[in-house]
Amino acid sequence: MPVDGRLARGDATRRLVLRRAADVASVDGLDGLSLGRLAGELELSKSGVFALFGSKEELQLATIQAAFGIFEAHVVTPASAVPPGLPRLRAICENWLEYSENRVFPGGCFFFNVGAEFDARPGRVHDAVASASGSFASVIRETCGEAVALGQLDADPEVLAFELHALGRAANADAVLNGGTRAYALARRAMRARLAG
Amino acid sequence: MPVDGRLARGDATRRLVLRRAADVASVDGLDGLSLGRLAGELELSKSGVFALFGSKEELQLATIQAAFGIFEAHVVTPASAVPPGLPRLRAICENWLEYSENRVFPGGCFFFNVGAEFDARPGRVHDAVASASGSFASVIRETCGEAVALGQLDADPEVLAFELHALGRAANADAVLNGGTRAYALARRAMRARLAG
Repeated sequence: MPVDGRLARGDATRRLVLRRAADVASVDGLDGLSLGRLAGELELSKSGVFALFGSKEELQLATIQAAFGIFEAHVVTPASAVPPGLPRLRAICENWLEYSENRVFPGGCFFFNVGAEFDARPGRVHDAVASASGSFASVIRETCGEAVALGQLDADPEVLAFELHALGRAANADAVLNGGTRAYALARRAMRARLAG
Repeated sequence: MPVDGRLARGDATRRLVLRRAADVASVDGLDGLSLGRLAGELELSKSGVFALFGSKEELQLATIQAAFGIFEAHVVTPASAVPPGLPRLRAICENWLEYSENRVFPGGCFFFNVGAEFDARPGRVHDAVASASGSFASVIRETCGEAVALGQLDADPEVLAFELHALGRAANADAVLNGGTRAYALARRAMRARLAG
């Protein structure tokens, strides 16, 4: 059997397991992950899945990385095609609400869930979650800074970024907990007021 | 042994277990609770603790109720001694940030944690978390409505309440995840701007 083919199949299996793991963790948390359960649900051999990840912690870390790639592809990357400053800031906010509302992950925003799960539990998983969350916070803050520097908004970029980040998370939290779309409408109205220019 | 004495000791044990359970759940989640582990940590008999709660789900439901009592005693009850409308709204916001910042629960706001944990998991625990969270949201919304009715603020009470609720939760989330007090300072500045009257 050619080595290249085996490696390619290993990569495909890895992607399949990680996508499923991110979906499961968005509902049940990263502690709810089990290599055995994932292998069973995906009808893969347990030994093959164990060989790919080695430990539950390695699976959790790889799941965070995979979920962040999906988050960026839905929220950040499309906004980078939009002109910098206020238009890009509006695009980030709208992409983010749509990513939550469309349930790209079945439990709503992956990072909202695992952030709350690991916020007070020191270790490698905490650090990976904090790094991903901090990276998105930086994107919002820098884009707020651009909008202010371009004279499109009159605000303290750090406070404005904190407010927008808060509104998006609250919309996700309320909508997933209570159902319905009212929380997204409220977040859109509050964001519009902050970004009125 | 007099029956009254046994009942009183049962109540005291129940309170002790629930306070510890709320602390544990604020870090490890309600799924992280174990009757056996709680009994061991508190040096109580396992059979006694099992008899008090019966099942893990009953323990989780009782823990939510106990945690909500502690939350109300720190955040809502002291604010009801403050004049209605804007002063009371400011007191609720400040009490809430202090409750998070002082780590009344070691993992930060209990309801932030268990809300994210059970938001997408239908059942009695979800409903109890949603009810507690909704009850606090109503207090904020009604107090915003009073401030608007008294002419102290010019705002849509529902949007304003959503914003304040979002800012408090974001402060708790960022501070617990990243450490430090910067997130509380940002939330205070943003709340002050919304409540400038």
